[in-house]
Amino acid sequence: MSTRLVIIGGSDAGISAGLRAKELDPECVVTIVVADRFPNYSICGLPFYLSGEVQDWHTLAHRTIEEITGAGIALVLGAVVQDVDAAGHRISIIDADGQGRSLHYDRLVIAMGATAVHPPLVGLDLPGVYRLRFMADAFAVHQHLEAHTPRSALIIGGGYIGMEMADALTRRGLAVTVAEHGASVLKTIDASFGSLVNAELVGHGVRVETGVRIERIDREGTQLCVVGSNAFQTTADLVLVAVGVEPRSDLAQAAGIEVGERGAIRVTRRMETNLPAIYAAGDCVETWHHLLGRPTYLPLGTTAHKQGRIAGENAVGGTREFAGTLGTQVVKVFDLVVARTGLRDDEAAQAGFDPFTVEVTTWDHKVYYPGAHEVRIRVTGDRETGHLLGAQMIGHVHAEVAKRIDVVATALFHNMRVEELNDLDLSYTPPVSSPWDPVQMSAQAWTRAQRQKNS
Amino acid sequence: MSTRLVIIGGSDAGISAGLRAKELDPECVVTIVVADRFPNYSICGLPFYLSGEVQDWHTLAHRTIEEITGAGIALVLGAVVQDVDAAGHRISIIDADGQGRSLHYDRLVIAMGATAVHPPLVGLDLPGVYRLRFMADAFAVHQHLEAHTPRSALIIGGGYIGMEMADALTRRGLAVTVAEHGASVLKTIDASFGSLVNAELVGHGVRVETGVRIERIDREGTQLCVVGSNAFQTTADLVLVAVGVEPRSDLAQAAGIEVGERGAIRVTRRMETNLPAIYAAGDCVETWHHLLGRPTYLPLGTTAHKQGRIAGENAVGGTREFAGTLGTQVVKVFDLVVARTGLRDDEAAQAGFDPFTVEVTTWDHKVYYPGAHEVRIRVTGDRETGHLLGAQMIGHVHAEVAKRIDVVATALFHNMRVEELNDLDLSYTPPVSSPWDPVQMSAQAWTRAQRQKNS
Repeated sequence: MSTRLVIIGGSDAGISAGLRAKELDPECVVTIVVADRFPNYSICGLPFYLSGEVQDWHTLAHRTIEEITGAGIALVLGAVVQDVDAAGHRISIIDADGQGRSLHYDRLVIAMGATAVHPPLVGLDLPGVYRLRFMADAFAVHQHLEAHTPRSALIIGGGYIGMEMADALTRRGLAVTVAEHGASVLKTIDASFGSLVNAELVGHGVRVETGVRIERIDREGTQLCVVGSNAFQTTADLVLVAVGVEPRSDLAQAAGIEVGERGAIRVTRRMETNLPAIYAAGDCVETWHHLLGRPTYLPLGTTAHKQGRIAGENAVGGTREFAGTLGTQVVKVFDLVVARTGLRDDEAAQAGFDPFTVEVTTWDHKVYYPGAHEVRIRVTGDRETGHLLGAQMIGHVHAEVAKRIDVVATALFHNMRVEELNDLDLSYTPPVSSPWDPVQMSAQAWTRAQRQKNS
Repeated sequence: MSTRLVIIGGSDAGISAGLRAKELDPECVVTIVVADRFPNYSICGLPFYLSGEVQDWHTLAHRTIEEITGAGIALVLGAVVQDVDAAGHRISIIDADGQGRSLHYDRLVIAMGATAVHPPLVGLDLPGVYRLRFMADAFAVHQHLEAHTPRSALIIGGGYIGMEMADALTRRGLAVTVAEHGASVLKTIDASFGSLVNAELVGHGVRVETGVRIERIDREGTQLCVVGSNAFQTTADLVLVAVGVEPRSDLAQAAGIEVGERGAIRVTRRMETNLPAIYAAGDCVETWHHLLGRPTYLPLGTTAHKQGRIAGENAVGGTREFAGTLGTQVVKVFDLVVARTGLRDDEAAQAGFDPFTVEVTTWDHKVYYPGAHEVRIRVTGDRETGHLLGAQMIGHVHAEVAKRIDVVATALFHNMRVEELNDLDLSYTPPVSSPWDPVQMSAQAWTRAQRQKNS
């Protein structure tokens, strides 16, 4: 008998699970239940659609519906899952045409993702106030931009989406204000780097207000009036609320599945839930952290792909384990690329390490060769063991920042000591690097500073 | 008593050794004997000086003389070393002013580098025929370009220098021909990639003749007539001979120091020669290969820096070992960047592995975002163990090819299996990558192809 695999969720984790299962076991019968009509869309691409850089939203699909079904996967689009009957090995759904039915499974993968957080503020449901998580959200914002040609926008939240949308809407000609409740934007990086991002925003005409917690939005005529802490007050034609995401685990919880960190589904490193035959993956689950050695909640597309692939492999008999996240992330804001991997100093200290952080500024390639750009690196290591703990990097979009953070991520994966980065045989030619790559220069600076500190 | 450290050679390895020794033991007395007046110059930068991209040759210095002496290092410039008296712990030199003297050392580092190979062909010493290794060579070519404004050039040799000089001289307006005796240019990469480089050259107006061994050069009036195998015949205003380098180990051999591969000085992984208190590093020594597990001759600036640093550390009491090369290399040819690390299929087979190579073509970032460039990757792994053996990559100069090869190099350093590349937590945002980085896509393609081959 071929395995009947049912997957709830048609984004990164769900599709990856389905494809991997079919790859390893072509006989298995895979059905993916998708809440909307846009399976396998790159939601990371939504800001670029709204900026106008992506002209045709169809291109945002990692794969077309035809490619997915062509791989032998059945898609049930526009369906709502009502419940999971773990004992009966079936789920109840309501089809796009309103008909209820149930699907029997041998193995189930829950990959329901996350939703945008609804912050506790008045006026969230007013026309002109949007969140950005699903294709429907993007269509709504796009429709507003086309129909009303707003001239100003307020973005609530200075995280990744907030930064990308500040870039996108500025590119579209809107006057953009970002309101962030923290002391600097991009709180995933250290404040000194956050202030560089801040400067990049300001340099492109974005108004940035930090230390502001938005309290209410009111409509006055065609405008939205927004009021926050510290006497913040502004008007805008459009408001985008981008204050983070939370896991969609209600359905799983109702079925008796345990949740942990931030309400995310608890899974083993094989992506098993506490219930037999039920796996979970992606933005709805806890993520094992390679350095912390414990689960955390870190919803990222890269991780969702990996976890989905593992869930799919194990659902058809595999025993693969998720190797763990390092929280590697990168974002482009105008001409800057900002990346991080591993732990920041404060995160490392909180986790019981003895961290020490050094910042270096250097060039992406030999400065004598035209087009050299500055790269700033903050490298964090453990004072006691000398082990690398993390790095943050910021530089021009052509400074190969993202792939340099990947070298650090690969080193972190192998628990290297900071000093050992100098042993890596990295590539060099004057137009792309230096004989010691910037990553290695930062390692040398760290070791020197640590020696001086200790002596 | 402070250690007297004498270093012969003022390029990458020699300067690195001196700086590292002073860093770890500020009391040590470091003297570096330099054959010319250009210590620590980036000879990798010479083609960019000759192309006109680097306007001022002074900027080619990794460090100025003032920076080096400011670090407490004594420089003896323009000096010829006559012999090494290993028993007496002294070297004899002839100063720039013709005076002979001897320098006593407690520790000696030989870092004399390599010279350009003189191939066995008639006419090598004619005016207008150049090699390119030292600053003096670059000045001579530059002088020729300025004084005679040549309109055509023949480059003998299709290696790194040949490629960079074809680019450089074309950029300067010369009609360039490259004559390569092998079947394709850049024989450090597989022929299929070599032909892409060939096409890039041809696309920029360079004439490429492969399978041609140059036999003689004659001067006829203001022109050079060049004749080679396969009825090759051409005239050129300038000829550049770039057929590789060989280690400068004569002086060391005369002192009783053993040599090995290609006549390069034999060293331990601590950069010790067979004689006590004498270390050697850089392009004049054998290089330990991480994957082959044996010494090889692979003269590269990155390796010279590493080995010099280790020699300097050990000369003042350290016990550090060179971790080994992977042969990681990158070159920019017009708008293409070509990189490799580890072993090619044929090299791996020769070394006793059971290699299998897969080529994939993908995009450097999500293709929906503007400016996506193709990246081609050839990944080689061992069929039996599944271990990664190497990769070659080719793509546009903005496709982050060099740092992607570095991710593979870091993985190789840790002896990862090809499939394990998928476990790496690499960075993603649509403008710089995909949820699975191209490196990981190539790993998945390799694993799939291997499974299909085995089934």
